[in-house]
Amino acid sequence: MTLGSIGEVVGGRVVGDQDLEVSGIAPAGEAGEAQIAFLASRRYLRRIAGSQCAAYLVSAELEAELAPDTPRVVVDAPYPALRTLLQQFFPAEERTPGIHPTAVIGHGVRFGSRVSVGPYAVLQDRVQVGDDVIIGAHSVLGAGTVIGARTRLYPHVVAYDDCVIGDDVIVHSGARLGADGFGYTQVDGERHKMPQVGRCVIGDGVEIGANTTIDRGSLGDTVIGEGVKIDNLVQIAHNVRVGARSLIAALVGVAGSTRIGKNVWLGGQAGVINQLEIGDGARVVVASTVMRDVPAGETVSGHPARPHREDLRRQARLGRLSHLKRRVERLEEEMRRLSSE
Amino acid sequence: MTLGSIGEVVGGRVVGDQDLEVSGIAPAGEAGEAQIAFLASRRYLRRIAGSQCAAYLVSAELEAELAPDTPRVVVDAPYPALRTLLQQFFPAEERTPGIHPTAVIGHGVRFGSRVSVGPYAVLQDRVQVGDDVIIGAHSVLGAGTVIGARTRLYPHVVAYDDCVIGDDVIVHSGARLGADGFGYTQVDGERHKMPQVGRCVIGDGVEIGANTTIDRGSLGDTVIGEGVKIDNLVQIAHNVRVGARSLIAALVGVAGSTRIGKNVWLGGQAGVINQLEIGDGARVVVASTVMRDVPAGETVSGHPARPHREDLRRQARLGRLSHLKRRVERLEEEMRRLSSE
Amino acid sequence: MTLGSIGEVVGGRVVGDQDLEVSGIAPAGEAGEAQIAFLASRRYLRRIAGSQCAAYLVSAELEAELAPDTPRVVVDAPYPALRTLLQQFFPAEERTPGIHPTAVIGHGVRFGSRVSVGPYAVLQDRVQVGDDVIIGAHSVLGAGTVIGARTRLYPHVVAYDDCVIGDDVIVHSGARLGADGFGYTQVDGERHKMPQVGRCVIGDGVEIGANTTIDRGSLGDTVIGEGVKIDNLVQIAHNVRVGARSLIAALVGVAGSTRIGKNVWLGGQAGVINQLEIGDGARVVVASTVMRDVPAGETVSGHPARPHREDLRRQARLGRLSHLKRRVERLEEEMRRLSSE
Repeated sequence: MTLGSIGEVVGGRVVGDQDLEVSGIAPAGEAGEAQIAFLASRRYLRRIAGSQCAAYLVSAELEAELAPDTPRVVVDAPYPALRTLLQQFFPAEERTPGIHPTAVIGHGVRFGSRVSVGPYAVLQDRVQVGDDVIIGAHSVLGAGTVIGARTRLYPHVVAYDDCVIGDDVIVHSGARLGADGFGYTQVDGERHKMPQVGRCVIGDGVEIGANTTIDRGSLGDTVIGEGVKIDNLVQIAHNVRVGARSLIAALVGVAGSTRIGKNVWLGGQAGVINQLEIGDGARVVVASTVMRDVPAGETVSGHPARPHREDLRRQARLGRLSHLKRRVERLEEEMRRLSSE
Repeated sequence: MTLGSIGEVVGGRVVGDQDLEVSGIAPAGEAGEAQIAFLASRRYLRRIAGSQCAAYLVSAELEAELAPDTPRVVVDAPYPALRTLLQQFFPAEERTPGIHPTAVIGHGVRFGSRVSVGPYAVLQDRVQVGDDVIIGAHSVLGAGTVIGARTRLYPHVVAYDDCVIGDDVIVHSGARLGADGFGYTQVDGERHKMPQVGRCVIGDGVEIGANTTIDRGSLGDTVIGEGVKIDNLVQIAHNVRVGARSLIAALVGVAGSTRIGKNVWLGGQAGVINQLEIGDGARVVVASTVMRDVPAGETVSGHPARPHREDLRRQARLGRLSHLKRRVERLEEEMRRLSSE
Repeated sequence: MTLGSIGEVVGGRVVGDQDLEVSGIAPAGEAGEAQIAFLASRRYLRRIAGSQCAAYLVSAELEAELAPDTPRVVVDAPYPALRTLLQQFFPAEERTPGIHPTAVIGHGVRFGSRVSVGPYAVLQDRVQVGDDVIIGAHSVLGAGTVIGARTRLYPHVVAYDDCVIGDDVIVHSGARLGADGFGYTQVDGERHKMPQVGRCVIGDGVEIGANTTIDRGSLGDTVIGEGVKIDNLVQIAHNVRVGARSLIAALVGVAGSTRIGKNVWLGGQAGVINQLEIGDGARVVVASTVMRDVPAGETVSGHPARPHREDLRRQARLGRLSHLKRRVERLEEEMRRLSSE
């Protein structure tokens, strides 16, 4: 593509030769001589010294950081522009639908149109599969599981019995949906397993990362709301409810029966204990441990998590403690002086 | 079922019409008009306002929170009662034993009676399987692995060579038993892998969560004691020993050669470094990092973990620091006043 | 083996009867009467009281802790000695190469010599496999993936399309290589998935633990350098680069586009946020959260991570706060006394 055509595709302002040809796109600091480099974060500036790319796709905010005559396409919203460009450079692959002859299909399984089922997939009795679904190799769907239209399961996904997976869902390899929650009770001094009879319900447009686990409900369902995005290696316990469009980063754990609101952000390695309520739009900073309810819109951090400003103040105070100690020492000295007068 | 028959099954006191019919059971706040709602935790009270269930199964402790004429079954121990009721509502499914024709069975594999092996399971040479065992689809059992009676492996479990799995064990999808521990040594400035030649030994009555990893021993075995329950995404390193009936919540990591006592509780996302001894009955609060031995019966928290009371005191002191600072300021003022007199 | 021959194999000094026969080796405290016990860490001393082994393989440093007449082999470097001995006791198993008849092989797949492919493995179109590679049962290799010589994939590994895996790599069960990174962008108020078009590139001599996830690059590649060792349940996000010979312990998370230097150590459950630079030889203490760049050679700890000494000082100050409070109380008393005089 030429710089000019890129500018047109992404709706950007072109600086330099419109006919300059670029062979591909790469992150700033990694682009080769013939490529256009993508620059949208100030933290990448340190990586571009001595880099030799043909041009930049750059945010308006960072344009001034480049040498004035650098060939470039300038956009206000760089990530949407990048997305548009990548869809141009890398069109989605075509798939021929079909059920691989090695797939094991149970009794009463129902398929929509244009379904693709990979080698060695196992669909147990009464599974229902919507139109245009892709089921990866080796995936196992428990009896009674229902999958909506256009959903894609990558290889090695397991859904236990009676899961409900919506439309336009993406589930990555190794995700486990609907396994038993961690529930036991003492009877006569002996620990017994609580039956886990609820379902695991995944809303439309959800994406679930690799090796993430979402348990079925114990009594009642575990429910992941519409448009929620969950990263890799996340644990969602039984009877948790996650509101629409929330984002959950990697290695997060949410304990049993907690309710996460809509548009919540849980940073990587954050944890939320059981039976809490996290309000809409709340944000939990990375690696924080939430042990109380969080009101809507609040940002919390720390261990245990507190309102973020309060946590920062506590951190700062701890940093100034040596200063406070010196003030006390000075007072003690003056006191000794006064007392001995 | 009627309220009266539920009362009888769970041994509870019935308040209201004995003949009231309920169509199912659900958590408080989620039950429909015809269902009985389960209420055992004060934190659920906020969820029941405006809820429309037919009746409650409620703990004696919380009975007074309901309107006086609410139809209900009252029990002292609500979770055992719920368990009894669920076993009634959801009897265990019947399985027809048998070895799926696609299972790959190695040389010298020995089966007990009534074994069920799912599609595409792979049992390598000399595997031994006890009576009434269920092996899920796609599970892979390494050479020489031994499985006790009535144990159930869900689909996609992997056990490496020479694992020993007891009776009445449940292993969820994606659990990896007996992978190599993380062990290397420097020889002539180069890092080399230590052979990992111990076994992974799982006691009777253990439950292992989805995508949990329990490494084999390096030299000597990794041993999970009788009745231990392990949640999802837990890492148990080589040569760890976990004592009987301990509970390990999700995303916990236990590093190499550490010994966990009996009846220990490790909260979610807790970590324990290598070569420690955690005494019987110890409790580690969620997301704490244990870097020293913990005596029997102690509760620890924080990062690094300390006795829980000490940790709470430290947290509280930090909270009162601004108060201390104001007291120092006042002293300084008075001192100035005194000195200038 | 005799004590004398063990001494010869490991190049150690023998104390006691050269002809003493030992039947095997076990960790100190677990060795049986006829075995040689391995003792290399002071923390194991508490475990050997009353233990009944035939002899010790012991570090020179700990020799004095044994009774003077204990039969033993003494070495300066115990772990390399153990490694040599284990290779003697447990020679590597022989494998007959071959492609299992149930493996599904796509178009244009190319194999080197002496390759072994397990049951139900799926190799999609254009996969390339080097000499002496072992591919475990059920592994799925996406289209265009390339695997170098002598690499071993244990059962249930998934590599998405276009992964590049080097020579002498070991990948444990359940590892997911090249899944999509966690990347979204808002367009007109709606969240859209960013195409993830980079690759996942694994260098020579890398070992990857069970159920670990290493995402493909979004734009540009995710790159794991030569000789890096990664433990179980680790998350490496899109576009991360890990320098040669770094070590990453279990349950670590590294967020997008961060660059880890060479010979870096990330302790278990540590986290590193996105777009950082961690210098060569840096060390991150267990369960720390890195939120800023770390200079080469620095050790950091805490939440957020700080230089380790500073973190220790802060911890210590917090411990001495009650002392400071008492000093302030004493000053207040004296002040009252002075003022009332």
